[in-house]
This record gives sequence, structure tokens and C-alpha cells, in this order.
Amino acid sequence: MKIMSINAGSSTLKWKLFEMPEKTEIASGMIDRLGSPKAVFKLKYNGKKTEREEAIESNEIAVLSILSALKDASIIDHFEDITAFGHRVVAGGEHFKKSEIVTDENLNMIQELAEYAPLHNKVEAYYISVFKKLVPKAIQVAVFDTSFFSQIPEVNYLYSIPMDYYKNFKARRYGAHGTSHRYIAQRLNEIVPGGIEDKNVIVLHLGSGASISAIKNGKAFDISMGFTPLAGITMSSRSGDLDVSVIPYLMKKLGLTDVEDMVDILNNKSGLLGLSGISADMRDIEDAAANDNDKRAQLSLDIYRNRIIKYVGSYIAEMGGVDVIAFTAGVGENSPEVREDILNGISYMGTKVDTESNHSRGKEVKITTDDSKIAAYAVPTNEELMIAQDTYHFAQLLN
Amino acid sequence: MKIMSINAGSSTLKWKLFEMPEKTEIASGMIDRLGSPKAVFKLKYNGKKTEREEAIESNEIAVLSILSALKDASIIDHFEDITAFGHRVVAGGEHFKKSEIVTDENLNMIQELAEYAPLHNKVEAYYISVFKKLVPKAIQVAVFDTSFFSQIPEVNYLYSIPMDYYKNFKARRYGAHGTSHRYIAQRLNEIVPGGIEDKNVIVLHLGSGASISAIKNGKAFDISMGFTPLAGITMSSRSGDLDVSVIPYLMKKLGLTDVEDMVDILNNKSGLLGLSGISADMRDIEDAAANDNDKRAQLSLDIYRNRIIKYVGSYIAEMGGVDVIAFTAGVGENSPEVREDILNGISYMGTKVDTESNHSRGKEVKITTDDSKIAAYAVPTNEELMIAQDTYHFAQLLN
Repeated sequence: MKIMSINAGSSTLKWKLFEMPEKTEIASGMIDRLGSPKAVFKLKYNGKKTEREEAIESNEIAVLSILSALKDASIIDHFEDITAFGHRVVAGGEHFKKSEIVTDENLNMIQELAEYAPLHNKVEAYYISVFKKLVPKAIQVAVFDTSFFSQIPEVNYLYSIPMDYYKNFKARRYGAHGTSHRYIAQRLNEIVPGGIEDKNVIVLHLGSGASISAIKNGKAFDISMGFTPLAGITMSSRSGDLDVSVIPYLMKKLGLTDVEDMVDILNNKSGLLGLSGISADMRDIEDAAANDNDKRAQLSLDIYRNRIIKYVGSYIAEMGGVDVIAFTAGVGENSPEVREDILNGISYMGTKVDTESNHSRGKEVKITTDDSKIAAYAVPTNEELMIAQDTYHFAQLLN
Repeated sequence: MKIMSINAGSSTLKWKLFEMPEKTEIASGMIDRLGSPKAVFKLKYNGKKTEREEAIESNEIAVLSILSALKDASIIDHFEDITAFGHRVVAGGEHFKKSEIVTDENLNMIQELAEYAPLHNKVEAYYISVFKKLVPKAIQVAVFDTSFFSQIPEVNYLYSIPMDYYKNFKARRYGAHGTSHRYIAQRLNEIVPGGIEDKNVIVLHLGSGASISAIKNGKAFDISMGFTPLAGITMSSRSGDLDVSVIPYLMKKLGLTDVEDMVDILNNKSGLLGLSGISADMRDIEDAAANDNDKRAQLSLDIYRNRIIKYVGSYIAEMGGVDVIAFTAGVGENSPEVREDILNGISYMGTKVDTESNHSRGKEVKITTDDSKIAAYAVPTNEELMIAQDTYHFAQLLN
């Protein structure tokens, strides 16, 4: 059964085609600079990568060009050969506690929830409707970035604000990156001896967006991202946590009158980019710190690691200890230095890094010694496969 | 030598008169509902408390009524018998890294720093000028709530926002409650065997305002309050930390256009008050949870404790362990339950509560057993004495 997972952004469209239940990746690709006359169409198939520039000026054309490319490559004969499409949706609010078949009613609800993720839910809902129209026989499934965290206890998702703001407006911690954290939890349950059902786990998803989750007895317990992905640790261009009181102060200094403009700065011009003044990419900053002896770059890295260590410590405390720690996403999978720093930072808990096995990139590997009191792993994430698995589950039920 | 410490608010004026260097408290008092025709004038002297209602409609009259009351009670013969006045000042910014004699230049600077604490610095500066006018020969000393935290490392005081906002506008973590944290650090250095100069210490100042500090090798290392006292843990009516992104969302829902109104709600209608819907006073909420089986009250208490435990855990992590924990202020000094919950919450660190010694209120006492890996104490704070000590230091130099 062929299942495609879709990750749509405002100007990008990423996809992967899987053969299920074998979890084989048949093909993948992405469209970049979508909406422009010089969009970039990338395709990876049979170990071969191709890339071409072409005008892709609408979402419909984007979807058609992907499906047509699959036909041209004889991966499918008809669009309908793809049984189901699984769509990443950023905000599921309190409504979607798990992945769902996209009925008309659900589609409306996804659009309504755009309040929580203005840049995402609308475009995602629109893509779902395009796929429905172009491949009407296929099943469309929505997989929510928030649903894994719908199970965290209210003590951890409520803010200390008037309770009516939660009751009436649903203002609370929703988290994000849930599909990745869920995938890592599932993998850990397979690779950790005895599984993780009776363990305290911390998952560090360190990519350009970055989040840390606490997983207790196999269930999501806390997440560093908040009402939106802005909160938590220092990210590529997002500030993470800061005192709300600094907002009116900065708005006055900057001559801003709309708080949305301030939030925009905190989302797009802050984090490592704002601190370093160099780049939103950690590799550039590490490079500047190491080779140019750039003190500000080093300071940015120090702040980045400090915030991670503080969150790890806070989750150890609220779970009453930790058994397993996992690193994933760009930095988490590929930076032995960051992993070692974080684990050494909590050596008071008895962590012992296996420097040899930790010296790997992009691989699933245990990175602590056998006598370490806490077991730590690097685990490559695969949100697309997680989406495909959820989608396959529904396709099986209905076929 | 007689030294008076002054803690001025917008409608209150608290004071204590000390004989120094003996640290003897001679008299103390406060004026409440200041500015109204029915202000309350309280005086405590010689073990006797008096209270009267009178019109105190200006700051000048307030100061005169205190000094006159001291003359009437024959505690002083002349106003000039008080050698020096020490004033609590909330915001010292980056300018005041320690207590200072109030010159005209310093007074101007305190007024300028009102940007960081609009409700406090102006009224504090005004009171200083009133005391200068009424007791011209006395020395006026400003003791800043922020100065203890001027020594925290930049990694901990910088936010992950564009670096120019720090360089140009000094937007950073300043903290608050510094005089209390400094006093507790000083007491701990006296009562902890071997002192705290080579130890990792966490101080929990849990009053209606509440803050947690990390003190490493005797120096302030981190503080939960931020640019202002709004940030950090759940307080009586302050929210503590939350995702900045929820601000524009709530403003839209509440029909607010000025972000200051939102910050006002977060300062005055949030925290335990907003969560419980009962009171800003923990005792009322504990009462409702215990006697009325009020689930929302219980949830508020759970959230309060959760946020404290998370901060304690994060400071343990960033210091790489902890040796000493101290509780102070209203709740910290008087709630064995909260102290026990927090210490049991981090029992993975080897804490063992001495339930008998912990069963005390308002006393300086060690509350962990001798085989506890971390030593914890309840230590009553005394910001007024700390202010008097700083003030005495200057008075000695000048006399």
C-alpha cells in the first residue's frame, strides 16, 4: 500500500512516499520557493536526486507536478495508486487529541484552529482540500504536531493566569514537534532494554526549531514549547522564554505599536541569529567561535547550551529523576559536542558519555557507557514515517 | 548609632529603626493607605504595638509623622539623632552594582531608572528627597533590589533576543528581591558548617512576590525574576513565566489594544489569585483545598509547587549540583508542607527532610537530617537589617 506524507509550509511543500507496512521509502522530494516563477522542484528516487527550476505559481500546480512526476517516473500508474495521504498539521488545539481522517467537519475545525498557528493551519487545510480534489478516492489523514502533548497533566499545561482564559479561550501550553517526540518515544520503546513504559525519559529535539519533552511512563508529561512554538529553549531564530514585561519596554524603544510585530521579531530575528549576529545556522556559529575566535559566537553557544541544561534539569526535577535521554533532529543527531556538553552538565546524576560511540553523526546509537546511571541515545527522527504509520492505520481500517 | 531603613511603596511606608552595629531593632512601623484621610499609622516599640487612624495626605506628612512619633516616644531627641537612612530601591539597572550614598547625581539616576520599575523608583526617589530635606544632616543610602544579581554571568542574564536590544536598551535579566537573597546568603555563610564560599546554594524566597536564586561559590549565579519581577515562578498575583505568543492572542480575545494592560493583568490578577479564583493569599487557598475539598484550589497549589520544583531542578543542573537549599519569606518561613514537598520532590538528589525540625514556623532551623546529601534550612529574612547594615557601612566611613 502506497502512503504519502505531506509537510506543507507557506512557500515549501515536502513529501515522502512509503510502501507500507514495510516502511520502505519509495521516493521523496520538495518544492521550494513555491508561488514564484522560479520555484525549485526536487525529487529523490532510486538513489538518484534530480532538481529543476520551474514556474509553480499555485498550490494546485504544486500538487499536480508532484503526482505527475511520480507517473512520469513510473512509480505510480494512476494518482489513485496512492491509497492515502497523511498531512502534518501544526495546531490541533484541544480538539484533536490524535490523528484523524479529514472529513469536511474536521477540515473546518483545522481552519478554525488557525487562530493558534496563523502561518500554518490555513495553508495545511488548503493543501488537504487540493489533494481531496485531485485524488478524490484517496484517504486524507491529518496528523497534528500538538496531539502527543494533549495527554500532559493540567498542572503542566496550565499557565498561572486567570483560569477563565483557559476555560473561555483555551489559552494553555499545547507544545509542538509532537510527531517527532512521539516517533522517538516509539523508537526508544523498541531499543531501550525493557522499553520505556515504566521509565522517565527526556527527548531533546534540537533542530532549527528546538524543543525538549518529558515523557513519563510512556506518556507525554511536559514540553518546552508553549501556546506556540515560540517558548522554551533558544532556537535558530526564536527567542524561547523571556519576561513578558520586556515586551512593552522594547516596543517603546523600537517605536512599535503592534505587539504582533514584536512577536514576529522574537520568532524570526532572535535566538542564535539575534545573539550571534552571524547566522541562524549553528554550524556557522560554531565555525566562527572555533576559527575566528569570535567571543559573541561563543557566548551564543554558551547561552544555547545553558537553556537546554536548565530545561533538562527542570524535567528531571518534575519527574523525580530520569532514566533515559535521547537527542534528535539536526543538532541532536549530528553534534557530538552538544550531546557531550549536555550530558556532562548533568554528571551529578551519574551520566557517563561513551566518547567513542558518541562520535557519530546521523546514526541511532547509545552514547553512554554501560555503567552510566542514565542511558542516553542519539536517535534520528522521522516525522514523515510517523505520519505514514498513522495514515496507514486508518487506510487499513477502511480498506 | 541609629540607622533607619525605609521601604516605600505607592501607598505604604514601612520603616525600622536599628541601633548599630548591635543590630538591635529599637522601633518599627508602617503607614498604610497613605494619601487618604484615613491612613493607618502603626508603631511598634518596647514590645508594645499601637495603631491609629489619621489623615496622612502627602509623603512629607508621612515622614514627619514617623519622625515626630519617635520624638514623642522619647526614642530620639532630635531628628538628627538618626545618623543615616537606608532606602530600598527596586531598580538599580546596570548602573548600581552595590548600595550607594545618594548624591544629587545618584538621585537623578534612580529617577531615570524608573523606566525599569515605573511603580517603584519614582516614589522611592521622592521619599529620599523628602528625608534629605527634613533631616539634611543625615546620610541617605540607596540599597538596590537588583544589585546582588549584577554579578550573575552574562550567559544567565542575557535573553536570546537581538544583541542590540541589550547593548542599546539594556534589556536583560535584572532580577529582584536581591536584598533578601543577599541577607540569606550572608546568614547561610554564618550557619552552614564551612560557610558557602565553595558551595552551590539555592535560595527560595517564597512570599507574595516569590523568587528563586542560584548562588555559586558565594556569588549570585541566577535568579528566576527577569527584566522585572513578573517572571519566574507562580506568585500571589503574578503569572511568572509564560509564552509571549499568548499575549497578542489574549489581547484580541479580551479586546485590549495596549500591551501594558495585559502586563497589568499578569502582575495583579494572575498567579495563585487568577488560578484559584479565591485569594492571592496561599493560606486561604490551602484552607479551601483542605476544608472545602476545592479541586481548583488544590490544582493552584499543585501548579505553584510544580513551578518551584522546576526552577530548583534547573538551577541544580546549571550549577552542576547543589549543596545547600534555604527557604525564606512568608511561605518559605512558615509552611513546613511546602518545604517538605519541594525537598521530597528532589529526593533523587538524596534530600532527607527532618520532619520534626521542619515542623517549625518563623525560625532559623536546619530542616534536613544529618545523613541528607543536601542540607536545607529555613531562614527568616530581614531585608531591613540588610539595608541598615549597608547604610551603617557608609555612615561609619563618613563619620
